[in-house]
Amino acid sequence: MKYRIEKDTMGEVQVPADKYWGAQTERSRNNFKIGASASMPQEIIEGFAYLKKAAAYANADLGVLPAEKRDAIAAVCDEILAGQLKDEFPLVIWQTGSGTQSNMNVNEVVANRAQVLKGFNIGEDEPFIKANDDVNKSQSSNDTFPTAMHIAAYKMVVETTIPGVEKLHATLAAKAAEFKDVVKIGRTHLMDATPLTLGQEISGYAAQLSFGLKALKNTLAHLSEIALGGTAVGTGLNTPKGYDVKVAEYIAKFTNLPFVTAENKFEALAAHDAIVETHGALKQLAVSLNKIANDIRMLASGPRSGIGEIHIPENEPGSSIMPGKVNPTQCEALTMVCAQVIGNDMAIAVGGMQGHYELNVFKPVMAANFLQSARLLGDACVSFDEHCAQGIEPNYRRIKELVDNSLMLVTALNTKIGYYKAAEIAQTAHKNGTTLKDEAVRLGYVSPEDFDAWVKPEEMV
Amino acid sequence: MKYRIEKDTMGEVQVPADKYWGAQTERSRNNFKIGASASMPQEIIEGFAYLKKAAAYANADLGVLPAEKRDAIAAVCDEILAGQLKDEFPLVIWQTGSGTQSNMNVNEVVANRAQVLKGFNIGEDEPFIKANDDVNKSQSSNDTFPTAMHIAAYKMVVETTIPGVEKLHATLAAKAAEFKDVVKIGRTHLMDATPLTLGQEISGYAAQLSFGLKALKNTLAHLSEIALGGTAVGTGLNTPKGYDVKVAEYIAKFTNLPFVTAENKFEALAAHDAIVETHGALKQLAVSLNKIANDIRMLASGPRSGIGEIHIPENEPGSSIMPGKVNPTQCEALTMVCAQVIGNDMAIAVGGMQGHYELNVFKPVMAANFLQSARLLGDACVSFDEHCAQGIEPNYRRIKELVDNSLMLVTALNTKIGYYKAAEIAQTAHKNGTTLKDEAVRLGYVSPEDFDAWVKPEEMV
Amino acid sequence: MKYRIEKDTMGEVQVPADKYWGAQTERSRNNFKIGASASMPQEIIEGFAYLKKAAAYANADLGVLPAEKRDAIAAVCDEILAGQLKDEFPLVIWQTGSGTQSNMNVNEVVANRAQVLKGFNIGEDEPFIKANDDVNKSQSSNDTFPTAMHIAAYKMVVETTIPGVEKLHATLAAKAAEFKDVVKIGRTHLMDATPLTLGQEISGYAAQLSFGLKALKNTLAHLSEIALGGTAVGTGLNTPKGYDVKVAEYIAKFTNLPFVTAENKFEALAAHDAIVETHGALKQLAVSLNKIANDIRMLASGPRSGIGEIHIPENEPGSSIMPGKVNPTQCEALTMVCAQVIGNDMAIAVGGMQGHYELNVFKPVMAANFLQSARLLGDACVSFDEHCAQGIEPNYRRIKELVDNSLMLVTALNTKIGYYKAAEIAQTAHKNGTTLKDEAVRLGYVSPEDFDAWVKPEEMV
Amino acid sequence: MKYRIEKDTMGEVQVPADKYWGAQTERSRNNFKIGASASMPQEIIEGFAYLKKAAAYANADLGVLPAEKRDAIAAVCDEILAGQLKDEFPLVIWQTGSGTQSNMNVNEVVANRAQVLKGFNIGEDEPFIKANDDVNKSQSSNDTFPTAMHIAAYKMVVETTIPGVEKLHATLAAKAAEFKDVVKIGRTHLMDATPLTLGQEISGYAAQLSFGLKALKNTLAHLSEIALGGTAVGTGLNTPKGYDVKVAEYIAKFTNLPFVTAENKFEALAAHDAIVETHGALKQLAVSLNKIANDIRMLASGPRSGIGEIHIPENEPGSSIMPGKVNPTQCEALTMVCAQVIGNDMAIAVGGMQGHYELNVFKPVMAANFLQSARLLGDACVSFDEHCAQGIEPNYRRIKELVDNSLMLVTALNTKIGYYKAAEIAQTAHKNGTTLKDEAVRLGYVSPEDFDAWVKPEEMV
Repeated sequence: MKYRIEKDTMGEVQVPADKYWGAQTERSRNNFKIGASASMPQEIIEGFAYLKKAAAYANADLGVLPAEKRDAIAAVCDEILAGQLKDEFPLVIWQTGSGTQSNMNVNEVVANRAQVLKGFNIGEDEPFIKANDDVNKSQSSNDTFPTAMHIAAYKMVVETTIPGVEKLHATLAAKAAEFKDVVKIGRTHLMDATPLTLGQEISGYAAQLSFGLKALKNTLAHLSEIALGGTAVGTGLNTPKGYDVKVAEYIAKFTNLPFVTAENKFEALAAHDAIVETHGALKQLAVSLNKIANDIRMLASGPRSGIGEIHIPENEPGSSIMPGKVNPTQCEALTMVCAQVIGNDMAIAVGGMQGHYELNVFKPVMAANFLQSARLLGDACVSFDEHCAQGIEPNYRRIKELVDNSLMLVTALNTKIGYYKAAEIAQTAHKNGTTLKDEAVRLGYVSPEDFDAWVKPEEMV
Repeated sequence: MKYRIEKDTMGEVQVPADKYWGAQTERSRNNFKIGASASMPQEIIEGFAYLKKAAAYANADLGVLPAEKRDAIAAVCDEILAGQLKDEFPLVIWQTGSGTQSNMNVNEVVANRAQVLKGFNIGEDEPFIKANDDVNKSQSSNDTFPTAMHIAAYKMVVETTIPGVEKLHATLAAKAAEFKDVVKIGRTHLMDATPLTLGQEISGYAAQLSFGLKALKNTLAHLSEIALGGTAVGTGLNTPKGYDVKVAEYIAKFTNLPFVTAENKFEALAAHDAIVETHGALKQLAVSLNKIANDIRMLASGPRSGIGEIHIPENEPGSSIMPGKVNPTQCEALTMVCAQVIGNDMAIAVGGMQGHYELNVFKPVMAANFLQSARLLGDACVSFDEHCAQGIEPNYRRIKELVDNSLMLVTALNTKIGYYKAAEIAQTAHKNGTTLKDEAVRLGYVSPEDFDAWVKPEEMV
Repeated sequence: MKYRIEKDTMGEVQVPADKYWGAQTERSRNNFKIGASASMPQEIIEGFAYLKKAAAYANADLGVLPAEKRDAIAAVCDEILAGQLKDEFPLVIWQTGSGTQSNMNVNEVVANRAQVLKGFNIGEDEPFIKANDDVNKSQSSNDTFPTAMHIAAYKMVVETTIPGVEKLHATLAAKAAEFKDVVKIGRTHLMDATPLTLGQEISGYAAQLSFGLKALKNTLAHLSEIALGGTAVGTGLNTPKGYDVKVAEYIAKFTNLPFVTAENKFEALAAHDAIVETHGALKQLAVSLNKIANDIRMLASGPRSGIGEIHIPENEPGSSIMPGKVNPTQCEALTMVCAQVIGNDMAIAVGGMQGHYELNVFKPVMAANFLQSARLLGDACVSFDEHCAQGIEPNYRRIKELVDNSLMLVTALNTKIGYYKAAEIAQTAHKNGTTLKDEAVRLGYVSPEDFDAWVKPEEMV
Repeated sequence: MKYRIEKDTMGEVQVPADKYWGAQTERSRNNFKIGASASMPQEIIEGFAYLKKAAAYANADLGVLPAEKRDAIAAVCDEILAGQLKDEFPLVIWQTGSGTQSNMNVNEVVANRAQVLKGFNIGEDEPFIKANDDVNKSQSSNDTFPTAMHIAAYKMVVETTIPGVEKLHATLAAKAAEFKDVVKIGRTHLMDATPLTLGQEISGYAAQLSFGLKALKNTLAHLSEIALGGTAVGTGLNTPKGYDVKVAEYIAKFTNLPFVTAENKFEALAAHDAIVETHGALKQLAVSLNKIANDIRMLASGPRSGIGEIHIPENEPGSSIMPGKVNPTQCEALTMVCAQVIGNDMAIAVGGMQGHYELNVFKPVMAANFLQSARLLGDACVSFDEHCAQGIEPNYRRIKELVDNSLMLVTALNTKIGYYKAAEIAQTAHKNGTTLKDEAVRLGYVSPEDFDAWVKPEEMV
């Protein structure tokens, strides 16, 4: 491989000749060989592209950066956002906890690429755009990385998570309406209970997601606050006056999302409670979805030895050994995602709680876990919706058989003959394998006519 | 010990003669010898007292319970709320997951105590008030226990957690204002960084708590929804029309808190996402408080070999072997509470995710963990506030010494001579153990006059 | 209330006149009003009693404590171990993270009680036994508290957890043998699969517990190492030569458990990885037990609309509203315990990871969570064993009906006619609601005779 | 893109013409668009290659597969192990929870590739090797996927995790020896305490890792048990006699690792407690490493306003804004890895606890989290070792200054003048900012000569 020499404040470094990155990126590649390469999420790099461009604009507006430099920086940022420089960001999550090296990776790539766009070779002549002095102007890793985190996180939540959950919610709400009159047995403690309708049962799932979406949206105001303008420790050292507000406006404009400058920059660097907060809502959704998916696979279990009250789509052969087997695979994918999100919540808590003084240095691990959760939840809801939820159909025959047979219909007699006599009827029928009506009449507690008039599943829902 | 015989639908049970509880409570005592006795939180019992009284009123209003019975039930509930029957609730958390046995414990105690208040002995004559048919009228364990959970949880949050956190927040905000001009060194990555003021540093802590309080309050709407009226599976079987709204109004009236009936009762029985949601906010506060307390003990560390920039109160001798030692014990108590709350969050998630069909049967464990977290956070904030935060004082001498000595003041030169020359100055001073000014002048990059004009810590904050 | 005046190095404190504790205990009571009082686990206090007595013996043997003082200290320790001084330990978990105040609580109680046993009043005359100089001789909180933790933890594990799990394991192993020929349908993905016997199914549960017990026992060597002799920072300052080995021998003798002195005292004070390690095994058991209990309640679900392949004991009425309902309450108690233990594992990890320099100051929270888990798991296994597992019985009729009806018996044809034709048979039977044999013959793939010869559930297990 | 038609039991599917995979892989690609593509860990695919080859050999030995087919299957498996077919495994973690689709992916690729190696086109003529009937012979997804998990996990632990941790342990042990006489101040509660040597302090870190390695190795016996031979539900249906033992022997031979057949196959399919168990040990190591890395960055903090007792290597510029700043970046990468591993432990627990009946369907998420943790811990230890631990050097000047100045040396006087007088000396010196000796003499408790004789830091360690 061919190399060129790049320099930073510590000296010279050999860098692959065909790459735009510079000395600090290369140092990081060499010093952090931990896990797969290039694991820093692409969305973080895009967040940087937005903010570097916004900073260039704000700097130019405030007179500390020439328009020509602004445009050169913005042009490369646009290339990054267009996905044209994907191989230029080789760094891993497991680097410095401030993400400084990924910030410098972006600074170096923008500077060198701008040099090339201007018609020079990298390293030829005095650089037109300098990584630290121009691309990073009015910035620090300490305020840029959290800003990139918030941009990436907010975008993922509103573009992937919320639409995915809303799509599934809409299907469940429609199913709840569709099946609102399908009377079925209820189950509490996994045991037969009084009836409800399939629509009511599913309405509970829809309500869970509705609450989850509300909880998630409640957190977005905190997540919309960005640290940029705080620079090294939150004081905004080396930024022009008015910069923090202006740069947030540009980010809001470029992303078309309602970002604002953080009211307290010290908090915004030293803590990432906004990430903790929003991920808490993602965890709540995971808790809800695990319940929902688990219920659906139990309700669909069988075909002959399970509960079997609903049908779900048969998407693929289920077994490499058992011919004809079909499994609730979408439920499984979704519950695995839930397990991951719940684990990620703990990784984020562990990172979030350990900030020291003016800086939390668990930024990349918090960002990576957040983005994984937000993406997986959104994707998995869409997959589950399209390949499972939309195809839920009642197994009417089975549902009717089970509800008619239920001993818990006896509950309707409580208000007529009291809890104790009702219990005696149910226990006797259970012991004898008979029907409630048989025993109610035989015990002399209810006449056949009254029984038929009082015990109507369809009126118990 | 003397016993009397009580009966339930399964038969006869011996019960201690001097207790009000009945057969089902006694069965539970015998069947669940797990951990310390009477571990079911007292706040849950009180939640039951509120709701049993409210149910009696709603039932009476709707014509299904005579006023005389209503008053008898309410009288015992008032005794429970006054703390007069504490020894009557011997059950543990680790019982049935619906809390049925604690519901029956309350039903039995109310019924038997009412009998005695009426002038009879327990078991004498036909009972005036029946546990299932009267005290539990229009109710199921499945809707009462979650209602008791929400009452207990909401009360604890608004009466203990929020006031505790607000008290600490007020102190930190006051300290931030008081020390707003105390210029000190900043630290990022635990390493010397550019300066900020002690007030700014503490303002970050105050901001964390402010966000945490907002997040916590955002969750209260969900927590204010109560399940009562759903009965066994959410359909409201065996309740009179209008009961759910009315009973919620009575609970709101008796507790003086804004409880409303849950819009979707199926969700309210089968899932406890409201508990997951609010506890997520408690976990966020724990994450914040861990950071804050940890910072404060690091800043106060010493007295001679630590950071030593602040003084905190010396409350007790710190060591049984090292004479004269004083430790940041309030920070330790608080961070231990944070560890507990973070663990509890996982216990609650594990319980919350495992509901089955119409019922989540992890109710008691979720309630117990929630109440512990909410109580501990509130109490610990008050303790930390009174015995630590209020007494924070700057160690002015030490603060000045460290800031004057800092190499990171060089950052002020970035905009004057560029990042690279500034770095060279800092690195040389570091290597030689000299001052920035010495090296800046010696290297010929800055004149002594310019250095003094440009590098002013108090202008860098 | 009456008070007396006690003194420590910080000055005078009012202490309730009828209590043995002294100034430092009282300061802690006043400074840490966090959660319920006296929450420090009793087992920790007993651990202290063992070690204070052992230290007195070792000190006497090594010539630094007169025999008379040794005997006085030992006498009070024996009283504590006999449960006679329970009201003398009012402190909470949420105190200093080294547990110094509970160490001093014990020191003070021993000293004052010894004074009284000698015939003096507290505070009268020069104390015969001094809290710091005698009871705490050759000790520090920093080595005593972790020693008390290990004593308490080890005892709980071997006296409660292991016997409880072994008891349940024995029952499951016996049931596995008893039902080794009961052929039933298997279920994978909750869907019908090839058959196995009920005994085989239960043998998997027994194997899980067997592995869990092995894992738990593997951790005991680490837990048997005690910190005592390290004093303040692990160097053993102020201890006589040979003390650490000797004091461990006395502890082993008094507890009748194989405690040894820790090879590296610095690790033993600064980290509590032994607690993390053993609790990791408790968490593994919780994971196993959750699976087992969940399976059992699903297998027992019904009575008419569930799986219903086994019967479990009916221990108590299951519902306050649904007459005759019986629930798998022991499964619920056990799975709630599992949720708690999994949460506790996280609290312990969060505490364990945050040691600083020579001391981890999350000792009490780690100890309390550990002891709760170990106790609950042991108790819950006994409860589950006695009230559920021992009573498991097959529902032979139901088991036979389901296995005979199963489509997955077709798997036996794979090796005869290939996976694809077998799949066609199963799919056709599923679609038509017919039997495998019908379709196998109709499709012309298998003769009726061959089908009967090849498809025998009892030969597929 | 060009396609060909592939068929499975559900019908026809279009598959990219240039890929070896078949219908079921393609269905999975289409049905599970969740997160990044091809996320199923490569190590799992390799585990499959080992086991498919081993199964072919065992089947041939037992007379159910011709030698020619065995060799054809083995040849493709060897290609996979040589990394030649990397683009043929496009599936994600978030598929069916049994990993059936990845098993089929391997089956299909092996079958089609064998067809090509034999000189045919895919789909041309009757296939020589059939995916289900030959490659998957005597197997089920349910026993292959857990076998692949154990192979992958065991290999990663012994090839990456253990060597990485051992390398770091060796360095720390060497540093402990090297600095065994460097007397420094101890710190408990972050506060000045009695002295110890730097070597002693570091020996505690080494001991932590030593315990962690022992704990990790203790778990390997369980992990070495493999499920293969259990097929669909653990009964071993459709396997020849002796197959399970033989196939494990081949796997042991091919991997050169001590795999054995699982004693209880029901446990091996329905639970993955071995993964839970070994990951518990990984979590313990994460807890230890977090403490160690955190201590090291605190000890190295400064350069002028921190603790500064040790130097660590300066690997890269630390700040994009603060010139000359160097940060403890390896500590940060390592502690971020620890946060991830602790989160992964919870994801694994959540998956492990939710097995149902004969199968746990959280296999892929458990495997992926395990492999990430094992890899990251190993890699991060090597990185931390090479770029940080090996370069730890004492800052002798600073260490001496702090120890000489310490007030806690007073502890040496306890046994001479008692705890109370010693405390008075320390408190007075603290208040007056004087030395212990000054105050000891001034208070008349110790003569100057005795002080010098008694208070020697180097004798206190």
